[in-house]
Amino acid sequence: MTHDPDEAAAAGGLLHRRALLQGGLLAMGAGAAAAQETGIGSGSPASMKAPGAPFSPYGMPSHWRQNVKRLVAGNPPGRTGVSRTPLEMLEGSITPTGLHFERHHNGVPDIDPDRHELVIHGLVKRPLAFSLDALMRYPMQSHVRFVECAGNSGGMTAPEPAQASAGALHGLVSCSEWTGVPLSVLLSEAGVDSKARWVLAEGADAAGMSRSVPLWKCMDDAMIALYQNGEPLRAENGFPMRLLLPGFQGNINVKWLRRLKLMESPVYTKDETSRYSELMPDGKARIFMLQLGVKSVITRPSVGLSLQGPRVYEISGMAWSGAGRIAKVEVSADGGRSWGEAQLGELNPVRGVTRFRMPWAWSGAPATLISRATDDKGAIQPTRKAWLATYAPGQAYHFNAMASWAVDPSGKVSHVYAS
Amino acid sequence: MTHDPDEAAAAGGLLHRRALLQGGLLAMGAGAAAAQETGIGSGSPASMKAPGAPFSPYGMPSHWRQNVKRLVAGNPPGRTGVSRTPLEMLEGSITPTGLHFERHHNGVPDIDPDRHELVIHGLVKRPLAFSLDALMRYPMQSHVRFVECAGNSGGMTAPEPAQASAGALHGLVSCSEWTGVPLSVLLSEAGVDSKARWVLAEGADAAGMSRSVPLWKCMDDAMIALYQNGEPLRAENGFPMRLLLPGFQGNINVKWLRRLKLMESPVYTKDETSRYSELMPDGKARIFMLQLGVKSVITRPSVGLSLQGPRVYEISGMAWSGAGRIAKVEVSADGGRSWGEAQLGELNPVRGVTRFRMPWAWSGAPATLISRATDDKGAIQPTRKAWLATYAPGQAYHFNAMASWAVDPSGKVSHVYAS
Repeated sequence: MTHDPDEAAAAGGLLHRRALLQGGLLAMGAGAAAAQETGIGSGSPASMKAPGAPFSPYGMPSHWRQNVKRLVAGNPPGRTGVSRTPLEMLEGSITPTGLHFERHHNGVPDIDPDRHELVIHGLVKRPLAFSLDALMRYPMQSHVRFVECAGNSGGMTAPEPAQASAGALHGLVSCSEWTGVPLSVLLSEAGVDSKARWVLAEGADAAGMSRSVPLWKCMDDAMIALYQNGEPLRAENGFPMRLLLPGFQGNINVKWLRRLKLMESPVYTKDETSRYSELMPDGKARIFMLQLGVKSVITRPSVGLSLQGPRVYEISGMAWSGAGRIAKVEVSADGGRSWGEAQLGELNPVRGVTRFRMPWAWSGAPATLISRATDDKGAIQPTRKAWLATYAPGQAYHFNAMASWAVDPSGKVSHVYAS
Repeated sequence: MTHDPDEAAAAGGLLHRRALLQGGLLAMGAGAAAAQETGIGSGSPASMKAPGAPFSPYGMPSHWRQNVKRLVAGNPPGRTGVSRTPLEMLEGSITPTGLHFERHHNGVPDIDPDRHELVIHGLVKRPLAFSLDALMRYPMQSHVRFVECAGNSGGMTAPEPAQASAGALHGLVSCSEWTGVPLSVLLSEAGVDSKARWVLAEGADAAGMSRSVPLWKCMDDAMIALYQNGEPLRAENGFPMRLLLPGFQGNINVKWLRRLKLMESPVYTKDETSRYSELMPDGKARIFMLQLGVKSVITRPSVGLSLQGPRVYEISGMAWSGAGRIAKVEVSADGGRSWGEAQLGELNPVRGVTRFRMPWAWSGAPATLISRATDDKGAIQPTRKAWLATYAPGQAYHFNAMASWAVDPSGKVSHVYAS
């Protein structure tokens, strides 16, 4: 399909991406300044006049970007709470490991990797204990997958939209390249008893985090993750090993994993009954609804990132689904009356984050930006109203409705409930 | 094609990957221990008995893994030299940003992003200056791409094989998800004069790093990179902006980029004549041979990572090509007499690193491991002998020949020239 470059992708200034390659559009200007030819080279910057800093064994972010940090919620030194990923300051699909969100229930344990074991027991033919050294000899896989806390975006159930950044609202999701041993290989070695249906996963932290996992998921794409974004796991992400259950709510991806017990039934632990189950309008609670829905959020522009006058911008955001791959992201600039299809990133892994982008010629008029993702199973992000109607009042887990940002004529962005 | 699980993929114990899913093979054992059922839970580890550490604004590697660091060569505080990525301690395709290799010619400059400009001038209709704020409004792309120094693996031209780790030998290659503005968009806005064929790229460091880039590459997949692995560039990787020329030798991906001058001819700067050109056997030097070859290296096992007795292991390594995607990696355990095809990773981007893996039942006999990559243009890694015959003695740039590791009966790994 070809488009007239002057043809809009949708109302409100949304443009077809190919339009960007047209000289005419660029003349609308994203803001380059005319260079003074004579000025170039006449004054070399200070950085060219003296040797720079030496090599470093482990690199750190630029001191000019110290504001790019996790948003720690709660009163330090509390050991239960969260720190969120500052989504609006990041780009692409991969979350830098130092900014991966944290959710701990009793702090980050310090585990000696040479004394840690993963035990597989219960309904198995051969109970087995795996040291980290032993696991390092097993076949591994590497996959780009997101982890999202079941409570992410739960603040959007509040009656009034919180005026908070994309990260503060939605930053309990991160995406990494995980490497580890397929759990199915270890379970096959232990020999699964035909009566087994569930697996208790327990962490070695002071919360004794325990969750019941359906056996089918353990035999499907579950992994004992040992590496994150290329390097050994970090303490707050489960060092020396964690359970990775792609697309399942974050909490069940048990960190600091010490044992897996195969059972006939789930345990109904404190961590899956007091939390992470969903109260429905009929008063019943839905438990073990583990898979996360399809979701997206626009990260630029968003609250705190104002527009600087009418010109061409790029709308950029993230989309992901617990069920599979992202098939489509639509963007609206007029509060949902018209929609244009965004371009998806080169990285669009199964149960990973893909980046979506759409050019936008902002006229300076008030605008309301919304994104709506569809996954390859056909699931579409619901409106906020539809989502709220699904659950009992006060239930805030698995919030995946569309989010909206309003832009006023000054370019200021605010959080609104447009759907 | 189906394989008998007992059928070897090649001699010397190389196995078909599907064999790993067979109970029989697992009984050969990667080293799990029988667990004492009664021991589980009777003694909780110390980490479960007291609250752990609090949240952190920016995460760092585990203190148990402080040995996973860049290998700084030369005598600090020297400002010219390299630090290498410790490849043998990493996994997957993505290099953690803190471990991306460094090559500086006069140190790492400290650049105020609000005072930095990228100027496009020379043979253009409209010379333009781009502040970082202006670039942030342009359309962006995210791509997983490797950067490799032209001098990587050059030590393999030495007459005797250096007994050094995979990282020390081959660690001037790293792979990241880069996000930035396609250079073609900026050049189109400036308006390229029809006489222009080359572009001088200059960095704002104290070396005034300058390279001549063919215009066709700038209009193809070149990018002004602003983010690496999701977060803003770091100082040693070019903050606030760098040129990314996927598949071209590292040095020409000019960091701290301050200007691009369009010209009719290359400049023959000091950085492309005194270095990074290749002396041929006929006494002529090949210049502007910018694209890197197809290459692979086995990272596990490798020097420093000994085997622990005869059992099943996984051979794991990295493969990449400056010309495109990796089509195939073959592995030999018998010094190149027989070859089996390895499994490639889910991530196999154009001009990116893919991970290859192959199961190996080591009998305890002496073995010589080699990997050989083929890219989707049909290029195959040469033998060391063939590579050496291509160039004049002493020329060590663009070394991409096959590398070999010998395993002795004790499991110790040494570097050998097997081809």
